[in-house]
Amino acid sequence: MTRIEKIRKGEVPPEAKIVAEEEGIALEEVLNFIKEGKVVIPLNSKRKKPIKPIGIGKKLRTKVNVNIGTSPEFVDYEYELKKLEIAEKFGADTIMDLSVGGDVEYMLEMVIEKSSIPVGTVPVYTAAVRAKNKRKSLIDLKVSEFFDTIALHAEKGVDFMTIHCGITKETVKKLKKAKRLVGVVSRGGSMMIEWMVHNKKENPFYENFDEVLNIARDYDITLSLGDGLRPGAIADASDIAQFAELELLAELIPRALEKGVQVMVEGPGHIPIHEIEMNVRIEKEKCREAPFYVLGPIVTDVAPGYDHITSAIGGAVAAMHGVDFLCYVTPAEHIRLPTLEDVKEGLIASKIAAHAGDIAKGIKGAKEWDKELSFFRKKLDWEKQFSLAIDKEKPKKMREERLPSSDVCTMCGEYCPLKKKI
Amino acid sequence: MTRIEKIRKGEVPPEAKIVAEEEGIALEEVLNFIKEGKVVIPLNSKRKKPIKPIGIGKKLRTKVNVNIGTSPEFVDYEYELKKLEIAEKFGADTIMDLSVGGDVEYMLEMVIEKSSIPVGTVPVYTAAVRAKNKRKSLIDLKVSEFFDTIALHAEKGVDFMTIHCGITKETVKKLKKAKRLVGVVSRGGSMMIEWMVHNKKENPFYENFDEVLNIARDYDITLSLGDGLRPGAIADASDIAQFAELELLAELIPRALEKGVQVMVEGPGHIPIHEIEMNVRIEKEKCREAPFYVLGPIVTDVAPGYDHITSAIGGAVAAMHGVDFLCYVTPAEHIRLPTLEDVKEGLIASKIAAHAGDIAKGIKGAKEWDKELSFFRKKLDWEKQFSLAIDKEKPKKMREERLPSSDVCTMCGEYCPLKKKI
Repeated sequence: MTRIEKIRKGEVPPEAKIVAEEEGIALEEVLNFIKEGKVVIPLNSKRKKPIKPIGIGKKLRTKVNVNIGTSPEFVDYEYELKKLEIAEKFGADTIMDLSVGGDVEYMLEMVIEKSSIPVGTVPVYTAAVRAKNKRKSLIDLKVSEFFDTIALHAEKGVDFMTIHCGITKETVKKLKKAKRLVGVVSRGGSMMIEWMVHNKKENPFYENFDEVLNIARDYDITLSLGDGLRPGAIADASDIAQFAELELLAELIPRALEKGVQVMVEGPGHIPIHEIEMNVRIEKEKCREAPFYVLGPIVTDVAPGYDHITSAIGGAVAAMHGVDFLCYVTPAEHIRLPTLEDVKEGLIASKIAAHAGDIAKGIKGAKEWDKELSFFRKKLDWEKQFSLAIDKEKPKKMREERLPSSDVCTMCGEYCPLKKKI
Repeated sequence: MTRIEKIRKGEVPPEAKIVAEEEGIALEEVLNFIKEGKVVIPLNSKRKKPIKPIGIGKKLRTKVNVNIGTSPEFVDYEYELKKLEIAEKFGADTIMDLSVGGDVEYMLEMVIEKSSIPVGTVPVYTAAVRAKNKRKSLIDLKVSEFFDTIALHAEKGVDFMTIHCGITKETVKKLKKAKRLVGVVSRGGSMMIEWMVHNKKENPFYENFDEVLNIARDYDITLSLGDGLRPGAIADASDIAQFAELELLAELIPRALEKGVQVMVEGPGHIPIHEIEMNVRIEKEKCREAPFYVLGPIVTDVAPGYDHITSAIGGAVAAMHGVDFLCYVTPAEHIRLPTLEDVKEGLIASKIAAHAGDIAKGIKGAKEWDKELSFFRKKLDWEKQFSLAIDKEKPKKMREERLPSSDVCTMCGEYCPLKKKI
């Protein structure tokens, strides 16, 4: 039985209890939200290595995901695993292994072995790499081969999976009508379209969605319905293709819940800041408040090298309006496979966005954190202040690099307003 | 005659024409906005060195200010002047010299000599430093000595000045009632309170506001009404002290306009993201749409070392809702006097925020910039893409550090979605 099914029968899954305690909200509420599909706990029930469960969704702290993984251009398993260490150290809630270079199955095993947080994947990437290893192209794959990779990842212990089931003959028609500037920017999405166009067939994940659900159910895997048609430029934001896909994903949600499968919905992408609220509202309405997992949103295209900032802006606004889960974006977005430093910068930016959103959402304990840090800031207690910071190391190092002559800082020195007795 | 007075008499100040052309909006509209106090052009009419005028306010591109200046802990004029170079290189619209260390009058002369963008100051800082040089304390200053520094800065060619005239006996009472966590965080604000409390006198700038206006009028200086009571912690945001000061500043605006003096209003500070819209709306309503100049807003206290990001979030949301002018915040905020790298990082973050806000505001040409960059992104024309970026150097360097084997990037390699013919 899945978590949803257990709750329906009146059982209390232990991980729901842990989530309720962790978040400081009533167990009954968490149980109801899981049952209604408003909260998910991504945790493979046949996982060999136990991890601490986390909840994603309504009334819960906004969570942050970190992507790692090899690329065909850089295959260094140890290096990617160091990213996992950094992610855990700086407070990532989940990790996605998006490897598409080298031995991706080995890499996934390593990630699952080493990670103490939930692991997500995009099985179609493995399908593409397997095709290549057989000196074939993705377009030559049989439908069963797509499903093999879902089963493979499930068996390895993956907790949540992105499935690009919203790209269909119908939504691809809308894509053509949309006359986009940048077209499709989703790696998985572009793979699905390529396969569908070449084989003149419907999306196998869409057409056989029950089969996807059956595997997910067997392992209580959380499905993340991928947004293969997310806009990749401000000019393409909120267009007919994007919303056609969202509507289609919305139709799949009751089918998942009926089978007791937990499900999230993925979202954009490049969205101007004033359209974010509308985007979140539409998802929440159409998708029965299923947890919304966004990549960005990136609020302008003009800042390559700083997309951790463009997406922190979008992520904070999205979280304020109800987004539940942020996929981090690094400064390397649009430019290169991220370095370790890129990963750290991206994660911190995303954590800031999530927390700023949580203050606005009124998440329990959110603003109390700020209060505690500011209490020590006022006291000029630098050690305690920095020990409470999102990044405890950087501000300490920065202060030490320009050490003042007393307990003030080198900005104001003796004119420090915090020193004045007023 | 000031710009406002000229326009009232039917004259067209040449700098208004330049602004209208630069922004691509009708001259008539710019003239009306200046007359009504909705747009300012900070430009000292007795300036020796000519600079390119810029407009700040309604329907205009959101502008970004960079603060530089010595502190008692670090006096290195050349180093601070390098910050000016960086500011100009990366597109700052204005520069404020906030020096409080060493020979601040020499420093200001240097800034005015070298800057090709409008220069702002906070004259009370110079008053404090002059007191110290005479081995006196700020509290020993005579009222005339405060005014001497305004006249001094005016004569040197300063284009806009922050005057902390909203801190009065009345608003200080409100401050006490507010029982703040962090109290007063404005350097100038804390100086005014210290002087007032010790001397049991009213704020000299408030009490003699006409005298402030007379000097401003003589040089057509734009006044920036300082928010000495801005909140310095999320816990203190939007409290009675902050709004009492804003109401008081609002009362001074018609007095300034009547005398033909251009005026802006300064704003917070630390504000949770969901209160930003309300803050902007109140300023716009109470202050007759006078340009709103915000420091931040910083949307969470918990990210020392990353306040360029916390303020980029706040600044973008503020700009979207109508803020006209962003004061940059660097990663060094709350920690140290910024380094050259801090200045660059802070400025870029603030430029991103301003532009994201401009897309949302519908500023002429804003989204077209994104469209152009994304056109070349889709073509994988890296040179042209980067030449259009906010920072043209960093993404180029990042790409070169992990150069791919072809025209794609090292993230997806051969799986690049932009390469697919779909």
